[in-house]
Amino acid sequence: MTDPTAQSGLRAGAGVLELLREFRHDPALADEYAATCLEKANAAETRLKAFEYLPREMARRPGPLSGIPVAIKDIIATSDMPTTNGSPIYRNHVPEHDAWVVERLRNLGATIFGKTVSTEFAWRHPGPTTNPWNPAHTPGGSSSGSAAAVAAGIVPLALGTQTLGSVIRPAAFNGVVGLKPSFGAIPRTGVHPLSPSLDHVGLFARRVDDVAFALSLLAASSDSDPHGRPLPGFQEDAGHGMPPLDKPRFGIVRFEKWSKAEPEQQQLFEAAIAKSRKAGAILEELELNDLDQANWKAINTILASEAALIFEGLVERFPDRTSDHLKSLVQTGKAHSALEYLAAKALQETQRSAFATEISGFDAILTLPAFGEAPEGLSFTGNAEFCAPWTLLGVPALTLPAGFGKRGLPLGLQIVGAYRQDERTLRAAKWIESVLEFDPGIPCL
Amino acid sequence: MTDPTAQSGLRAGAGVLELLREFRHDPALADEYAATCLEKANAAETRLKAFEYLPREMARRPGPLSGIPVAIKDIIATSDMPTTNGSPIYRNHVPEHDAWVVERLRNLGATIFGKTVSTEFAWRHPGPTTNPWNPAHTPGGSSSGSAAAVAAGIVPLALGTQTLGSVIRPAAFNGVVGLKPSFGAIPRTGVHPLSPSLDHVGLFARRVDDVAFALSLLAASSDSDPHGRPLPGFQEDAGHGMPPLDKPRFGIVRFEKWSKAEPEQQQLFEAAIAKSRKAGAILEELELNDLDQANWKAINTILASEAALIFEGLVERFPDRTSDHLKSLVQTGKAHSALEYLAAKALQETQRSAFATEISGFDAILTLPAFGEAPEGLSFTGNAEFCAPWTLLGVPALTLPAGFGKRGLPLGLQIVGAYRQDERTLRAAKWIESVLEFDPGIPCL
Repeated sequence: MTDPTAQSGLRAGAGVLELLREFRHDPALADEYAATCLEKANAAETRLKAFEYLPREMARRPGPLSGIPVAIKDIIATSDMPTTNGSPIYRNHVPEHDAWVVERLRNLGATIFGKTVSTEFAWRHPGPTTNPWNPAHTPGGSSSGSAAAVAAGIVPLALGTQTLGSVIRPAAFNGVVGLKPSFGAIPRTGVHPLSPSLDHVGLFARRVDDVAFALSLLAASSDSDPHGRPLPGFQEDAGHGMPPLDKPRFGIVRFEKWSKAEPEQQQLFEAAIAKSRKAGAILEELELNDLDQANWKAINTILASEAALIFEGLVERFPDRTSDHLKSLVQTGKAHSALEYLAAKALQETQRSAFATEISGFDAILTLPAFGEAPEGLSFTGNAEFCAPWTLLGVPALTLPAGFGKRGLPLGLQIVGAYRQDERTLRAAKWIESVLEFDPGIPCL
Repeated sequence: MTDPTAQSGLRAGAGVLELLREFRHDPALADEYAATCLEKANAAETRLKAFEYLPREMARRPGPLSGIPVAIKDIIATSDMPTTNGSPIYRNHVPEHDAWVVERLRNLGATIFGKTVSTEFAWRHPGPTTNPWNPAHTPGGSSSGSAAAVAAGIVPLALGTQTLGSVIRPAAFNGVVGLKPSFGAIPRTGVHPLSPSLDHVGLFARRVDDVAFALSLLAASSDSDPHGRPLPGFQEDAGHGMPPLDKPRFGIVRFEKWSKAEPEQQQLFEAAIAKSRKAGAILEELELNDLDQANWKAINTILASEAALIFEGLVERFPDRTSDHLKSLVQTGKAHSALEYLAAKALQETQRSAFATEISGFDAILTLPAFGEAPEGLSFTGNAEFCAPWTLLGVPALTLPAGFGKRGLPLGLQIVGAYRQDERTLRAAKWIESVLEFDPGIPCL
């Protein structure tokens, strides 16, 4: 496939801020751009299968995101497009109202580009999306289509959600920037719940500045989400890019499972540390043993218990249209006692407080987003164990592309910050991005 | 017992605002007053048994509550007095830090007067406090000592807590004003938890204006309590009393259990309605059937599950120093599944939304605080079924004295408002207070 954007004079894989600059110079470019994005999406679809729905044409609106096509994970409600939640039960479902975040995007001038494939209700049963770097491999999940669409250069920005590892893992597997902001930063009204104590709305883009700008526009308080409050620290001119941190301090977190990561992923991590140290960062090993030991059981107890309440009726009413993955999740959840659930919630609180202290001497943490490249096959969306601790804590986490593995699939680097210190975390990530100077480019589809 | 305040020129049973007015005229009165309160407390103690701890002397501080003695329920931490939590396990426990609300009271100039008897950890096992109107009857619980101390004219203001009916019920049984403000209105840091989804800090006083003024000073946001935010609507001059609402609209809520209330309590309620109608209020019957059917099971499921996590270790380690009531609560809680707990929490949310709609045409709701007079004997602190719905909803609820029953014990009237509309609820209650013109006076001890 040739790149149709080439003809418009826009760089293939241009990011949100870069596009907005171009559109300011020549507003006509924006319409042309949306049309070529749609063309590209349709052309890629046979192989990529990233979209549940693509509209026929794109309408432009005024606003700070005017002309930016944003792909929306299909568990997020859109009033003018179907919202399948990745389930055949909702095949023809068009919600009455936009999700809060979709309405907000429209008001910001963004173009709602289409609905991207999600695993069934953002749990484990995969959709048809393939990895744009190699169609024999999973794109990761659950935000499979959003990650793949950004990686393939179809859209510069996409929405996903993360309850365990559903933004960070696919972002890493597809070689794009993925951001799971602080818990509650983006209101979840109109997003199908999986586990309300853990569900986050997140973002995919090609540059750290792009997710930072989007977050600065989308973070808000909302009466319908008790956790939503505007985030501190974002400057009004975030649209012109943030200043990276000066000489950041990083804590290096490896966890006990470190040795199970692929050798190429480990080497790439060590190389990033060496480059960062050379460029002036202060880096120290940081052990988070309690979190390491306890997080996996706790997060899965919370997730299964809350999911059981949400999906119990559904798996009973639709035994033929719900997957074994979902049925098994409900069964696991139903077996938990209230005491087990509440102990896991209490551990979440304790670990949040402990982490606030542990990270206080650092600007951010460096760790892995995954064990390595995207696994082969489409049935397993990958291991989320490197994502789970930060989802449980509700702290901001970002992955950025840092290299390729031995099969030519992308590898990432994860940067994690303190709760509600999203801006500082993003500035630390931007520093790393500028030190690594790595751009995976656009895969040939 | 004669009333030692008589000699100081202060009216026996003077309220907070009245006292503050007197102290402004003659600041020396404040020291005298605190001393006579202490004298009165010590004199009454043989029979009333309202206090776990009384200090030897009272220090005065400047501030808007300067000179006001405030009695503190003994599950609320005080750094200079023991805090037993109503349990022999904590007999000699002096916490390192004041509870948030105690520190706040000190900063407002209030005098921390002493610690009042609570049932064991604010659950059912009663302390020794008797009802000041008749020592053969319970004062109610769990905030037994705080309600009795205000009713006996010992202090003009006291702190309590409510998880089921622990402020409203004892306030009604003792003939004083009790306020359970909106959930989270007063931060709970340093208050021993029973069920964090339901625990409220509340207030006892003699007049509606007094609890309103105290709430306007104590409502606050606090990082340590995610639910705390300042309440809207209170004016800066709350210290001079609020204006009552003009021609308020009341919803009359009876519930299915209505017919089981004592005849005198029913008659008194009908009389209050008749008086209110005559004075210009608009009153309409309001049925809340779903709430009526579901609230008791839901609140008890939440309470027992959360309490099981808190007290499980304690009843195991101290089988001889925990009551059968507490052991049984833990057993009940341990038997709940995560699904039962989460369904109860979901019902709480659903009912909160439904109630917001149902109350929207009214300023407040009129209902009963209890089935009638305080039961005989000290072993049972009374039925909380008329309190539970509002505690589950987290909406502001106030009881005020409205008459006496056939045994000469006080009866109350409960006023309930919309979530975070505490000020409007209090102004509606003040309207009723002025229409009823009822003052039970001070019982002779």
